[in-house]
Amino acid sequence: MTQTLRTRIQASFDRQAMMVTLGARLADVQPGQVQITAPILPVATQQHGHGHAALAFAIGDSAAGYAALTMIPADHDVVTSEIKINLLAPARGDLLIATGNVAKAGRKLVVVTAQVHARTNDQDKLIAILQGTMVPVPLD
Amino acid sequence: MTQTLRTRIQASFDRQAMMVTLGARLADVQPGQVQITAPILPVATQQHGHGHAALAFAIGDSAAGYAALTMIPADHDVVTSEIKINLLAPARGDLLIATGNVAKAGRKLVVVTAQVHARTNDQDKLIAILQGTMVPVPLD
Amino acid sequence: MTQTLRTRIQASFDRQAMMVTLGARLADVQPGQVQITAPILPVATQQHGHGHAALAFAIGDSAAGYAALTMIPADHDVVTSEIKINLLAPARGDLLIATGNVAKAGRKLVVVTAQVHARTNDQDKLIAILQGTMVPVPLD
Amino acid sequence: MTQTLRTRIQASFDRQAMMVTLGARLADVQPGQVQITAPILPVATQQHGHGHAALAFAIGDSAAGYAALTMIPADHDVVTSEIKINLLAPARGDLLIATGNVAKAGRKLVVVTAQVHARTNDQDKLIAILQGTMVPVPLD
Repeated sequence: MTQTLRTRIQASFDRQAMMVTLGARLADVQPGQVQITAPILPVATQQHGHGHAALAFAIGDSAAGYAALTMIPADHDVVTSEIKINLLAPARGDLLIATGNVAKAGRKLVVVTAQVHARTNDQDKLIAILQGTMVPVPLD
Repeated sequence: MTQTLRTRIQASFDRQAMMVTLGARLADVQPGQVQITAPILPVATQQHGHGHAALAFAIGDSAAGYAALTMIPADHDVVTSEIKINLLAPARGDLLIATGNVAKAGRKLVVVTAQVHARTNDQDKLIAILQGTMVPVPLD
Repeated sequence: MTQTLRTRIQASFDRQAMMVTLGARLADVQPGQVQITAPILPVATQQHGHGHAALAFAIGDSAAGYAALTMIPADHDVVTSEIKINLLAPARGDLLIATGNVAKAGRKLVVVTAQVHARTNDQDKLIAILQGTMVPVPLD
Repeated sequence: MTQTLRTRIQASFDRQAMMVTLGARLADVQPGQVQITAPILPVATQQHGHGHAALAFAIGDSAAGYAALTMIPADHDVVTSEIKINLLAPARGDLLIATGNVAKAGRKLVVVTAQVHARTNDQDKLIAILQGTMVPVPLD
């Protein structure tokens, strides 16, 4: 089961050019929880050389969206309806790790959260938290 | 005055590698309002080929942040504290146009909003709205 | 039409005990826009004697929800899915005025905004802005 | 220490008339975490007789705010800068329980979350989650 889920989510992930651009990788898929990692590439920095807010947003939103996808019927995709990010610290370090979780999986809406950590020399620091809503949509 | 403001914001904008990656352009700078445009580049799409949520987020957040920057002392920069995006329609079309506005410019916090439109054949469609908080920080 | 709309919304409003508790009044109903006013009653204050954040939230959320209700079929009600409030200034003055607007009326979701002003001696000051999502639900 | 903290927070809580109006009670105070409970009083319902969104918001926001207060200097109070609530299920049951937590306690901003559960016959159901920002302000 989890293998199928993983395969299905990996296939969707691979079609997201933005994830490729950011160097993001699907790190872990569990029912209700998905992890995405990304380095802080030179293409994704802001004016001070740290990771751009949109980088933390991109992987946090995607981790949350794929966490939602693990909880809905296989003939559906999800789209982000809304999501909010609080940025707690600059995005600097060796790797960003976004962990998305499902707070409530409804039929029409899936409420999600995500945490983004920055890893430096095996030390993880929480740099962003997200809270949002995903909408299941039938696949064509 | 506005020329100096424009020059200062353009200089910061040019240091944001993420904006270059997304093909974004600083289109207009007025006191309290900034416009940023971006095409929907192949590098910035999601799994269905539309613009990624992180693209609308990136230019909406930046337009809002630079709108805040027009309202604070010149020896300060701003960082995003938090921001929320509601996505209203898929990001498809010739060009995305983000317009950032200042709702309240305080000394410690600047509350901002942004709207993102997708332009197709000179028709503009509202695809996202944002509401957030920017924090002025002294430049080194 | 607007009379029927007004009657329908007034009937729902009158069933909200919380609105009565807060002394709130349905001030204006237009397609896509609803206004609710409330005094700052002693029962609704926070620790410094100003209006509680929950007061601005209550009337902003309700104004936004009823604005959504004006845009959906008459055999539906709406419930709040999510909403965010940025508080710009303390709630003090003679009267709070919440104006709810519809940003996008979809079939499954209605995206809304609201502004709350505090009126003192006929001077209006913006004290809060809200952005959220309402979900239409069929009436029994 | 915790006794002093509890006393200080109880004193602030008792000055919030809105909390009295809603029948809310300060249930637990720990460094970084505060719990507030409230019944669903007839004065706090919406049009279907369930607890109003503003009730869950009020106790969630207060629990989060007081959690922030446990992490800042004693000569400061906090005010809500912004907060977002996702409503997961109707507020019905014997008691609402809001648990506020601190995600990041900065000098200028404290980022917080809260969860609201509805208890019915000793069964707890998650009905709302909140994510927001508190601002420490010096006491007069």
